[in-house]
Amino acid sequence: MKRREFLTTAAVAGAVGTVAKTASAQEVTHRIGVAIPSATHGFMGGLNFHAQDTINRVKETYPQLDFVLATAGDASKMVNDIEDMVATRDIDALVVLPFESEPLTSPVQAVAEQGIWVTVVDRGLSVPGIEDLYVAGDNPGFGRVAGEYFRENLTSGQKIVVLRGIPTTLDNERVDAFTAALDGSGVEILDMQHGNWNRDDAFNVMQDFLSKYSEIDAVWAADDDMAIGVMEAIAQAGRTEEMWIVGGAGMKEIIGRIRDGDPQLPVNVTYPPAQISSAIEMTALGLVSATPVSGRFIIGSQLVTPENAADFYFPDSPF
Amino acid sequence: MKRREFLTTAAVAGAVGTVAKTASAQEVTHRIGVAIPSATHGFMGGLNFHAQDTINRVKETYPQLDFVLATAGDASKMVNDIEDMVATRDIDALVVLPFESEPLTSPVQAVAEQGIWVTVVDRGLSVPGIEDLYVAGDNPGFGRVAGEYFRENLTSGQKIVVLRGIPTTLDNERVDAFTAALDGSGVEILDMQHGNWNRDDAFNVMQDFLSKYSEIDAVWAADDDMAIGVMEAIAQAGRTEEMWIVGGAGMKEIIGRIRDGDPQLPVNVTYPPAQISSAIEMTALGLVSATPVSGRFIIGSQLVTPENAADFYFPDSPF
Repeated sequence: MKRREFLTTAAVAGAVGTVAKTASAQEVTHRIGVAIPSATHGFMGGLNFHAQDTINRVKETYPQLDFVLATAGDASKMVNDIEDMVATRDIDALVVLPFESEPLTSPVQAVAEQGIWVTVVDRGLSVPGIEDLYVAGDNPGFGRVAGEYFRENLTSGQKIVVLRGIPTTLDNERVDAFTAALDGSGVEILDMQHGNWNRDDAFNVMQDFLSKYSEIDAVWAADDDMAIGVMEAIAQAGRTEEMWIVGGAGMKEIIGRIRDGDPQLPVNVTYPPAQISSAIEMTALGLVSATPVSGRFIIGSQLVTPENAADFYFPDSPF
Repeated sequence: MKRREFLTTAAVAGAVGTVAKTASAQEVTHRIGVAIPSATHGFMGGLNFHAQDTINRVKETYPQLDFVLATAGDASKMVNDIEDMVATRDIDALVVLPFESEPLTSPVQAVAEQGIWVTVVDRGLSVPGIEDLYVAGDNPGFGRVAGEYFRENLTSGQKIVVLRGIPTTLDNERVDAFTAALDGSGVEILDMQHGNWNRDDAFNVMQDFLSKYSEIDAVWAADDDMAIGVMEAIAQAGRTEEMWIVGGAGMKEIIGRIRDGDPQLPVNVTYPPAQISSAIEMTALGLVSATPVSGRFIIGSQLVTPENAADFYFPDSPF
């Protein structure tokens, strides 16, 4: 059962004109709660930046919308934030990136059962069908786009190493798609080890690879934090000229180096922290118009090259 | 390879504020071409209405955007429309609902290769990966939501008949999900025949069902045009009190009767012609902000009940 009760006004107004016309410019008619994890690491720092930036943009575009933004360092703080949004701020819609799936499922389900629109971002809940809208990145696409770049830019017999993330379904989806894209290319994957999306772990894994393999043509670091650890290990081994590296997720420092034509970092693959922007914008659109916004939006992973890197560089973002 | 070149200005502006601030209010900075089939039948009539309504709404919200809308009665007219938008109107983005997949694939691919953003709606192209954004309804969901309603509102041993659409993958997906939702319920499917999403064909199929089966508790007509043919056959047989009917796609006349509590039409399932609105709005958002809008948005099929029917009733729409 989907909840569209709050859209009644918008739907009727949408049919005769726009909500902006029927509501006086500054009158707040709908409030959106946004609950996200705190900026504890690079990706979440970027996500926090984009959430606030988008709230500012949407409030300017649609003065009839108001927002409550809460960030949480653990799951129980997030549950409290959400309960507070419902009890004291009378939200019409909730946009939530669950800190963890399990502890957030029942509280978010309770929100949905009160007829409040629910948009879930990135990490799914443990029970399917609770949310009205799901917005996330494309994990198989993330691996495939990287794999296709390696295939197109290496020749049969060239050798690569791969750093994997924390052992999860998500990591499996990415790696399976990466290796599938290389199938039949003759490119040799020397080794794959878990760097756990962590800079220090990646440094250690890459040191090990460098000591074991005398020829490495390229590295799929699969994450920009890991790419930084990998580059440090390569620099200490004095083998910087030997191989190029593809990270992932679009860290500002890495995108800047791609834009500037660094031969060590030819491209990147997006898994955008700005997915929170898509979630907030689509939720807002559902409140101000009759546009269908329920469903499932999977944001494609894109190849960042020197030519288009400026589109993915956000000077004010911490990530 | 994805095309985001046109987003450079927006991305940079998005990082420091909003485009609305940097562009003077009436200065057109981007133009979107919208190519859709003509309003030759109910669903397309609704889609045409929503396309124009949304263009009006977006132009009011973002005065820096301009639109070219073209409707076509056949594939070659649509190809010409699109070539004209590129050659003489200098569009930055194309939103297209392909008249047919095959003849539109190469022309739309040529548009994409010129660096123009491409959003494809509903009917996919014959080659994957051409479009930046794909927006469509959820066909398995359309069958599943209907099937779940039948399961919850019939008891084991009750009997139904099913009208199928034109034999297509799309129809198979819908019907497979419908029958899967009924598995194990004990509800008996007496018969399934193709009514081809056509009122007259559905009338004939239903006449046949009525002459063959002396007890029918409910009908899955799976489409509102077919539901109208079905109701006519039932009325002529004088069996209106015996069975209820579920159509689909949200035709205005049907939604109005659900809203008014007609016992013959308890619910409907959406497959919204307003999906064109989602496609236009998301494309516009990609032009005025740094929000990621590339990827795949599948609009969920929703159950329309007397309680929420007003949200799905568009008095000015022809459908």
